[in-house]
Amino acid sequence: MALIVQKFGGTSVGTVERIQHVAEHALAAQAQGHQIIVVVSAMSGETNRLVQLATQINPIPYSREYDMLIASGEQIAVGLVSLAINTLAEKKGLIKAGESRSRPLLGHQIGIRTDSVFSKARIEGIDTRLLRDELALGHIPVVAGFQGVDIENNITTLGRGGSDTSAVAIAAAIQADDCEIYTDVDGIYTTDPRMYAGARKISRISYDEMMELASLGAKVLQIRSVELAAKHGVPLHVRSSFSPVEGTRVVSREQLGDHLEKVVVSGVTSDASQVKFTLRGIQDRKGLLADIFGSLSKNAIDVDIIVQDVASNGNLSLSFTVSHTDALKAKKVLESLTPRDLSTVEILEEPGLVKISIVGVGMQNHPGVATKMFSLLSEAGISIKLVTTSEIKISCLIEGTHAKAAVATLHQGFELDRTE
Amino acid sequence: MALIVQKFGGTSVGTVERIQHVAEHALAAQAQGHQIIVVVSAMSGETNRLVQLATQINPIPYSREYDMLIASGEQIAVGLVSLAINTLAEKKGLIKAGESRSRPLLGHQIGIRTDSVFSKARIEGIDTRLLRDELALGHIPVVAGFQGVDIENNITTLGRGGSDTSAVAIAAAIQADDCEIYTDVDGIYTTDPRMYAGARKISRISYDEMMELASLGAKVLQIRSVELAAKHGVPLHVRSSFSPVEGTRVVSREQLGDHLEKVVVSGVTSDASQVKFTLRGIQDRKGLLADIFGSLSKNAIDVDIIVQDVASNGNLSLSFTVSHTDALKAKKVLESLTPRDLSTVEILEEPGLVKISIVGVGMQNHPGVATKMFSLLSEAGISIKLVTTSEIKISCLIEGTHAKAAVATLHQGFELDRTE
Repeated sequence: MALIVQKFGGTSVGTVERIQHVAEHALAAQAQGHQIIVVVSAMSGETNRLVQLATQINPIPYSREYDMLIASGEQIAVGLVSLAINTLAEKKGLIKAGESRSRPLLGHQIGIRTDSVFSKARIEGIDTRLLRDELALGHIPVVAGFQGVDIENNITTLGRGGSDTSAVAIAAAIQADDCEIYTDVDGIYTTDPRMYAGARKISRISYDEMMELASLGAKVLQIRSVELAAKHGVPLHVRSSFSPVEGTRVVSREQLGDHLEKVVVSGVTSDASQVKFTLRGIQDRKGLLADIFGSLSKNAIDVDIIVQDVASNGNLSLSFTVSHTDALKAKKVLESLTPRDLSTVEILEEPGLVKISIVGVGMQNHPGVATKMFSLLSEAGISIKLVTTSEIKISCLIEGTHAKAAVATLHQGFELDRTE
Repeated sequence: MALIVQKFGGTSVGTVERIQHVAEHALAAQAQGHQIIVVVSAMSGETNRLVQLATQINPIPYSREYDMLIASGEQIAVGLVSLAINTLAEKKGLIKAGESRSRPLLGHQIGIRTDSVFSKARIEGIDTRLLRDELALGHIPVVAGFQGVDIENNITTLGRGGSDTSAVAIAAAIQADDCEIYTDVDGIYTTDPRMYAGARKISRISYDEMMELASLGAKVLQIRSVELAAKHGVPLHVRSSFSPVEGTRVVSREQLGDHLEKVVVSGVTSDASQVKFTLRGIQDRKGLLADIFGSLSKNAIDVDIIVQDVASNGNLSLSFTVSHTDALKAKKVLESLTPRDLSTVEILEEPGLVKISIVGVGMQNHPGVATKMFSLLSEAGISIKLVTTSEIKISCLIEGTHAKAAVATLHQGFELDRTE
């Protein structure tokens, strides 16, 4: 008997039929002798509908209101999934009318405590007592992903894709044996199949690689959920809610074993909708950069690639990228700093860029990977605007119009098209 | 300076524009020096959308799930209204960016404790501390109507129209000076203007009459909210959110004064979608009726008109009506009793009926009102299926197809068409 957390994404609960399928799935797993906790996202389309309502009132909504608003999406899904489980359990004769086989639970009800950074809150703790009680009763707790409460009891949300983080955090807190992430794709691919048809499913991948793939736009798992899984050793299994085939298992490097030696690059990702800001003519003063990035960070803006240059006159030039969703906020922050610190500075904004990255733990043992990446792009006539590298990843910022060509070139060039 | 609770119904927050209008309205009242608490319903259409999702999964949804599901409608409205108030306050220069003039609050956040009768829960207490704190900060608390939490921290809802009850309960708990109920009509009418064009707005009415009107289908105020207002002496003002004209003030009989003497009938109501159940051939035994109605009540089914007859053979015949929304549940309850107690009983179900009532505190001092009602209906060729009377109300159950004609006949017959 295993304790399994099953997380279902928005498309997996997108219609009444799919919700009923989730109920079937959870009860089937329970019938095999497992203890099941279900974590759900909002029905697909729901969050966007709510965001659209909010932005009609204010393009940059107040975050406390915004979080309360969008947290309702998961509440709806939890109600419906729990209802479907009880209904099916009654139909199957597992319970009598009026009894429960399931219990719907919101973030505040199981004490998912977070900090107060609305819309990007971090989980600080989970009280697993109620979950354990429900499991002991033979129930399937159905928990709202994506949400928690801060110390003042305000509803908080964890950022897009935060339901993965909820699932992993619950799995870690309750020491689950497995955390299954059900989604509309059947696993992690070497690149986004919508970008390049030659994409291939990966059967096993390390937490490290998965983190880089997630952060770079693989869109299947939120990076923080993988970070958390790695930290607590929670085994992840990313799989399709529409098909019983094995998906992709995300494990530690040690468990990857031999595999590690053979593959140089595990995947190619493209992260669209990047905006590049360039500040020209900065007169250096101690702490200025810390002030800039401190202010951005204080406003919960994630800064990605950062490049700093010294011009011939000794002035600094600074470039960095943010997601287009943060661009308006970032610009406001920069302008609020301008009068005091950056009065002589020119702020340039370049939207519509894409970050293309190759990821692989193998590249540490194979020199020349970066050179090969630059050559491949150059041969394809694609110019590179910014470069950044880490231990297991190399990223290039390019024009958005070249994204597909770049992915195809790199996928073929690093021999990802071949079968494993 | 007064402390005013303003409750906005579903149509008053039905679109982004109307939500912005609510924000304007609340801030204008605050600018006049008042302390304002806003209570909101779900955006019109939202609750129905959610109910439809639930009933696709189960025609009689599990109530804990159902309540969590539909409570999300008010959560959305609260988020949007609070967002609109903050946004407008910032635009008007009342607050700086990042500051708040408003705070969104759900039932569990301000400790609206209820019993555990899901979908028809009753409020047991409200902790006003957080509301007082927010008012002291100059904020406008925006509170979700219709919802609370039971002792196990399950989300509960108060039944359709329960936001009125929330508003009155909050007004009573915090000792507000006024409870304004904003709706899509400009007050209480002598009958539903959609049923009869000669309907006239009532300027002042007693709690008692309002209770009878509300329960009988005036659809403007939930009966429990008026009951609660009467109990705690909360002055109600039912008015339009689209027009500044005075609406209808609901006060005690004492405050009505002279008015009381002159008017015999204050209003005519029609309550559609009644289902009549008749049980024939009941062999009397002690406590049987208590068992029947006890079982119905335990299943939270409101039984309305009850008529009992003794047949020539000594057997009982029993008729009663329930709302069509409870009919399916009522039938199940009756059938569950059948094998044990009612084996020889024939259960007849007659749907599509309408209850037509006349209401007025004045009828106590004017004999012959019932006779006049029966004559008027009889002259119009409308036959009466059941009759029930109370101190200030007489109701007749008739065929649904005769509803409009009956309302017109009674409205004219009791001289409600004339101006006050």
